[in-house]
Amino acid sequence: MGMNVRKFQTFEWVDYENPKKSELAELIKPFGIDYHVLEDTLQVGHLPKIEKLNNLNFIILRAYSVSPEKQSSTISDLTNKIGFFYNDSTLITIHQKGFKFLENIGDDIEDPESLMIKIVERMLETYEKPTEWLSDLMDKFEKDVFLHKLQKFSVHDLYYGKAKARVCKKLLLLTQTVLNQVQVHPDNVTKLQDEKETLYNLIHQLDEFLEDANSLLNIYISTTSQKTNEVMKLLTIFSAFFLPLTFIVGVYGMNFQHMPELSNPYGYYYTILTMILISVLIFVWFKRKRII
Amino acid sequence: MGMNVRKFQTFEWVDYENPKKSELAELIKPFGIDYHVLEDTLQVGHLPKIEKLNNLNFIILRAYSVSPEKQSSTISDLTNKIGFFYNDSTLITIHQKGFKFLENIGDDIEDPESLMIKIVERMLETYEKPTEWLSDLMDKFEKDVFLHKLQKFSVHDLYYGKAKARVCKKLLLLTQTVLNQVQVHPDNVTKLQDEKETLYNLIHQLDEFLEDANSLLNIYISTTSQKTNEVMKLLTIFSAFFLPLTFIVGVYGMNFQHMPELSNPYGYYYTILTMILISVLIFVWFKRKRII
Amino acid sequence: MGMNVRKFQTFEWVDYENPKKSELAELIKPFGIDYHVLEDTLQVGHLPKIEKLNNLNFIILRAYSVSPEKQSSTISDLTNKIGFFYNDSTLITIHQKGFKFLENIGDDIEDPESLMIKIVERMLETYEKPTEWLSDLMDKFEKDVFLHKLQKFSVHDLYYGKAKARVCKKLLLLTQTVLNQVQVHPDNVTKLQDEKETLYNLIHQLDEFLEDANSLLNIYISTTSQKTNEVMKLLTIFSAFFLPLTFIVGVYGMNFQHMPELSNPYGYYYTILTMILISVLIFVWFKRKRII
Amino acid sequence: MGMNVRKFQTFEWVDYENPKKSELAELIKPFGIDYHVLEDTLQVGHLPKIEKLNNLNFIILRAYSVSPEKQSSTISDLTNKIGFFYNDSTLITIHQKGFKFLENIGDDIEDPESLMIKIVERMLETYEKPTEWLSDLMDKFEKDVFLHKLQKFSVHDLYYGKAKARVCKKLLLLTQTVLNQVQVHPDNVTKLQDEKETLYNLIHQLDEFLEDANSLLNIYISTTSQKTNEVMKLLTIFSAFFLPLTFIVGVYGMNFQHMPELSNPYGYYYTILTMILISVLIFVWFKRKRII
Amino acid sequence: MGMNVRKFQTFEWVDYENPKKSELAELIKPFGIDYHVLEDTLQVGHLPKIEKLNNLNFIILRAYSVSPEKQSSTISDLTNKIGFFYNDSTLITIHQKGFKFLENIGDDIEDPESLMIKIVERMLETYEKPTEWLSDLMDKFEKDVFLHKLQKFSVHDLYYGKAKARVCKKLLLLTQTVLNQVQVHPDNVTKLQDEKETLYNLIHQLDEFLEDANSLLNIYISTTSQKTNEVMKLLTIFSAFFLPLTFIVGVYGMNFQHMPELSNPYGYYYTILTMILISVLIFVWFKRKRII
Ligand SMILES: [Mg+2]
Ligand SMILES: [Mg+2]
Ligand SMILES: [Mg+2]
Ligand SMILES: [Mg+2]
Ligand SMILES: [Mg+2]
Ligand SMILES: [Mg+2]
Ligand SMILES: [Mg+2]
Ligand SMILES: [Mg+2]
Ligand SMILES: [Mg+2]
Ligand SMILES: [Mg+2]
Ligand SMILES: [Mg+2]
Ligand SMILES: [Mg+2]
Ligand SMILES: [Mg+2]
Ligand SMILES: [Mg+2]
Ligand SMILES: [Mg+2]
Ligand SMILES: [Mg+2]
Ligand SMILES: [Mg+2]
Ligand SMILES: [Mg+2]
Ligand SMILES: [Mg+2]
Ligand SMILES: [Mg+2]
Ligand SMILES: [Mg+2]
Ligand SMILES: [Mg+2]
Ligand SMILES: [Mg+2]
Ligand SMILES: [Mg+2]
Ligand SMILES: [Mg+2]
Ligand SMILES: [Mg+2]
Ligand SMILES: [Mg+2]
Ligand SMILES: [Mg+2]
Ligand SMILES: [Mg+2]
Ligand SMILES: [Mg+2]
Ligand SMILES: [Mg+2]
Repeated sequence: MGMNVRKFQTFEWVDYENPKKSELAELIKPFGIDYHVLEDTLQVGHLPKIEKLNNLNFIILRAYSVSPEKQSSTISDLTNKIGFFYNDSTLITIHQKGFKFLENIGDDIEDPESLMIKIVERMLETYEKPTEWLSDLMDKFEKDVFLHKLQKFSVHDLYYGKAKARVCKKLLLLTQTVLNQVQVHPDNVTKLQDEKETLYNLIHQLDEFLEDANSLLNIYISTTSQKTNEVMKLLTIFSAFFLPLTFIVGVYGMNFQHMPELSNPYGYYYTILTMILISVLIFVWFKRKRII
Repeated sequence: MGMNVRKFQTFEWVDYENPKKSELAELIKPFGIDYHVLEDTLQVGHLPKIEKLNNLNFIILRAYSVSPEKQSSTISDLTNKIGFFYNDSTLITIHQKGFKFLENIGDDIEDPESLMIKIVERMLETYEKPTEWLSDLMDKFEKDVFLHKLQKFSVHDLYYGKAKARVCKKLLLLTQTVLNQVQVHPDNVTKLQDEKETLYNLIHQLDEFLEDANSLLNIYISTTSQKTNEVMKLLTIFSAFFLPLTFIVGVYGMNFQHMPELSNPYGYYYTILTMILISVLIFVWFKRKRII
Repeated sequence: MGMNVRKFQTFEWVDYENPKKSELAELIKPFGIDYHVLEDTLQVGHLPKIEKLNNLNFIILRAYSVSPEKQSSTISDLTNKIGFFYNDSTLITIHQKGFKFLENIGDDIEDPESLMIKIVERMLETYEKPTEWLSDLMDKFEKDVFLHKLQKFSVHDLYYGKAKARVCKKLLLLTQTVLNQVQVHPDNVTKLQDEKETLYNLIHQLDEFLEDANSLLNIYISTTSQKTNEVMKLLTIFSAFFLPLTFIVGVYGMNFQHMPELSNPYGYYYTILTMILISVLIFVWFKRKRII
Repeated sequence: MGMNVRKFQTFEWVDYENPKKSELAELIKPFGIDYHVLEDTLQVGHLPKIEKLNNLNFIILRAYSVSPEKQSSTISDLTNKIGFFYNDSTLITIHQKGFKFLENIGDDIEDPESLMIKIVERMLETYEKPTEWLSDLMDKFEKDVFLHKLQKFSVHDLYYGKAKARVCKKLLLLTQTVLNQVQVHPDNVTKLQDEKETLYNLIHQLDEFLEDANSLLNIYISTTSQKTNEVMKLLTIFSAFFLPLTFIVGVYGMNFQHMPELSNPYGYYYTILTMILISVLIFVWFKRKRII
Repeated sequence: MGMNVRKFQTFEWVDYENPKKSELAELIKPFGIDYHVLEDTLQVGHLPKIEKLNNLNFIILRAYSVSPEKQSSTISDLTNKIGFFYNDSTLITIHQKGFKFLENIGDDIEDPESLMIKIVERMLETYEKPTEWLSDLMDKFEKDVFLHKLQKFSVHDLYYGKAKARVCKKLLLLTQTVLNQVQVHPDNVTKLQDEKETLYNLIHQLDEFLEDANSLLNIYISTTSQKTNEVMKLLTIFSAFFLPLTFIVGVYGMNFQHMPELSNPYGYYYTILTMILISVLIFVWFKRKRII
């Protein structure tokens, strides 16, 4: 376990990294925290939550903690949680994973709420990279679909991109629910409001990714069936011209002893003329039917 | 009927397994429970509910009670109910089916509410296995669709997986509605909160299964039509090359007595050259049209 | 008009079957019911509603009144209404159609509310048969789609099943809205609650039908396009093998006087070997491309 | 401008048809109506609204004002508005277009609210014809799709029918929002309730049209792809039988000098037998694969 | 930085265009505005918001600021923000981009709220052009799809049109949320109401675009698959007629020495009759199967 105590002017911040259950139980005893609450801070994959205890506020939030392109749609694969306990004189943070953004926090923080909001700000910032990565991925998808590189378009990547966007969006929606329930001192209202706006902006971008993804998949399907239609037309045109002609040449390839046309000196030329005529008729008919 | 009475320090727990209506009516008479309420505890497939009676709280919840892979989408096939009646001094539980998890309950329980919450916790745990089973099923589906084993992908299993996920989700949403209406003593708020979070987590996982299932079916359809497109292209290419060539060789297979080309000593070679030329032209045209 | 008056211990029940407007106006005059309210009870296809008049409660509900398999999606085709007016001493019911379930009502009913709830119970029971019929229909659809009897699957029946389920669900949702607004004496709360639960259960089953229907139609479409894909593959395979071979035999069917291969004593066998070679090459290529 | 004043027993009704802005400004001056409110009554395409002014109630509603089959989806094309100002002693109505239903209003109206509700009733009645027209259109669509007249089914009409239903539904939903905010004297509550029910019924019917339209388009797509599948099967069957046979007859059409089969006196019959055998094999294989 | 101070009868309007952070910090110091609030006015792409500060109201809204046909779906590409701070005696507006509509504001404005509402009105007017442009685009799409110019229909334009409509709609919905929270003096309620109605109207039109776009894409897909079906039918018809006939002529093109038909003087004519008969049979069969 790593434990780190920092004293600010008016309050104390105690940060526990990767504590064992037994260690934690002892350390936290003076605060009278319930057993079930303690478990929440240790449970892998616990979703964002807020709970008002007698003398403490308890919040769990999750920060995005892997590389943006990591392909997973499991909350515990993509994110790690921080548990906050705070009252007017103390902020306790508990987390399994070490976070860089917890290190360089300045000294000019006036109360535990402000510090908590500052950490929340940095947690929200962790979602910016994967959100941008998804946005760039969408730009790539759009290029593949619209610049006639359909065969490069990866439905596989689209599927996992959607799953990831959905998980991130869900976590941010839960975070929004939590932040909307946090009640802070009037001095901190504007800071908290700022984080809610950041959150809304991230949710908007993930929403756009999801909307675009569905829209693009439909476009991809329609483009594919349009291409199939074109290829079918081509096949039909080829067949419509050559099937009748090949039949005709087949007729005069028969070996009957009595076929008057065969001995006609112009038979060959008449046949060629007939075939040209048939081709022209088919062409005209196709033009009229708007197939060619 | 199996009846089991357990005395705790401050209260009594009476558990009825598979009681007959008449037996139940008599046993429960002292509590003045209404006839309609009694019927609820016996009705097969009754959905989760909460009702405040004069002197008792009445709750029905359902535990998942078959093997995870059981293929059904009927509430009464997949789950069995437990009815709870409780006040400050007594907890009565009524259920048709025997549940293992009702057996090894410890002695350190302080009030009927705590015991009820403990049983609810174990009921919710019964949904974990089928939820994980569905999640593993989705992983299998994803492998089938994305690792080019389309023919192994079973829309049949997807359909029944979705139906089952929907039923489980619906039951858990109803359970959520019930738990949100339960009012407990302040000491038990945190325990109950923990169960609501477990519930939310299960609902989230079923939600993900349903979202992924819809997403994957769309991808499967788009992949199928993409494959059809490729096969059609192949057919069109084969036809476009061989239909004209076969026509040409057909022409010189005709038996007309007067066909000057036939007696030309280079006729055969000219014909072959013409056919090569036509093939090249078609190839170039296909290249331009981005079909090849 | 059929009018039927029944006296219970503490109240009176007046039942009017198929009254004319003029008759009704006169009969109802002593209760001071508004003209617009009266019209509601006579209007064909009026939706479920509740209205609190000065001295009476006014409710309209609709019972399913045709055979379960009747193919219609019009509220007035499928259902018939009963209008209820009641206060502490009287229940008046007005309906155009005769209902069997109004006949054998026992004597042990204590107040007009209880009688109204009893009739509502029997009205809700009329929806059970069509709901079960729809559920059986879905089982048939599933068999058709999954047991390779695609050609027996009737999109026509699916479409009308959906329309009917939607109408029944809508009526039950309106009934739910009405029942949630009904305020009854504490003694009757549990009875009314029971009917709300019955209602919820019916809505759930219709919901499941609708979800399954949409899911199954998507599966049907994907299965159809999968079958098309397989048939196309077959066609492509046949064509890919026989188009080149037929071309080759066409070449040696030409009648040129100067074709050295024709006089080669092994020409025929070389040609057969070439064709076998080509077939093998195509087979290998198809295997590699995973088409065969 | 047409202005029409009618005196009832306890109040006055002033109806302005197609007033100019300047005229209106002057006429309405005594009531102290705000400039922006005045503009609302003149703005083309203004949506339904309600606003409480100091001493007046102000309502805008829209009546359907063109023939039912008119193909448009613009609010101002399909409907025209009436603006109502009223207090206890006066009702002012302002509208650009003349409405027949404003003419034959009886004398037995007791207050401005009643008159307003009566006019609203007649405005809602204008939506009945287009709603029925859409319902008949849907019946025609259903016949086209299900009675094997797919080629008569017009996606064009479906598209515009949907757009129109959506616009009408939206206007009626806005009207519902307005009517739910109107507060009337207890004597008029039942009359107003009646109009809300009429409104609900219209919305229900448009809802059904929209649901049916989406459902039917999906069925149409699935039917089309089913037909394509059948046609492809046919093509594949024809090809699978004739491609091999045509190849075989091509083989014996070759002109090699050394082909032992050609001089075999039974060669022709053996070949025919071989071809029958191949046909039977293909037939059996197709039967097994359930293609035939 | 451009700063512009205008004095009205009862208040002052200070407009800052493109201020630097440092400049802004100094200028705004007397009003005691929080640091985080200041940042909001400078942050690129900040979404619409409202915040009540101690002595000031703070609003951010966004005006559409590029040409209607600009193809982008990013909030900061399409729109620019104006930040409003106001109390009873002052309106401060802050914006990066210059807006023409801020220039010609009349003198007859009575209070800062009225001026703010006037500017909001002009901001909303900026959305009218792109909304109309989208509406015209939809008319073009509809012509392309329904007037048999399917190949001119651009799914690319549809996709970007949808993305743009979605972004505009979202901004307007956020603006609606903001305006619904603005509390104004009774004199200004009607003016503000007017803007809310304008807003609703714009949202309605964007909604219609999005609904139409989805509807049209489905129609396009169904039309494409209908066309494919027709082309396939044609191909199948051609193949069904010519494959058997070509086989027959192939049979009599075989070079067996012993083929009795070949020496029959009517063999050729019998063969032609047989082929006519087969054609008629296929034709009748196709007619029955409703393929022709
Ligand atoms: Mg997931
Ligand atoms: Mg997954
Ligand atoms: Mg999620
Ligand atoms: Mg922000
Ligand atoms: Mg959003
Ligand atoms: Mg969005
Ligand atoms: Mg089922
Ligand atoms: Mg369910
Ligand atoms: Mg949890
Ligand atoms: Mg969820
Ligand atoms: Mg989800
Ligand atoms: Mg879909
Ligand atoms: Mg219907
Ligand atoms: Mg219908
Ligand atoms: Mg409905
Ligand atoms: Mg029930
Ligand atoms: Mg339901
Ligand atoms: Mg459901
Ligand atoms: Mg429209
Ligand atoms: Mg339009
Ligand atoms: Mg609309
Ligand atoms: Mg009605
Ligand atoms: Mg409705
Ligand atoms: Mg409906
Ligand atoms: Mg976008
Ligand atoms: Mg984008
Ligand atoms: Mg958006
Ligand atoms: Mg307006
Ligand atoms: Mg709207
Ligand atoms: Mg709409
Ligand atoms: Mg769709």
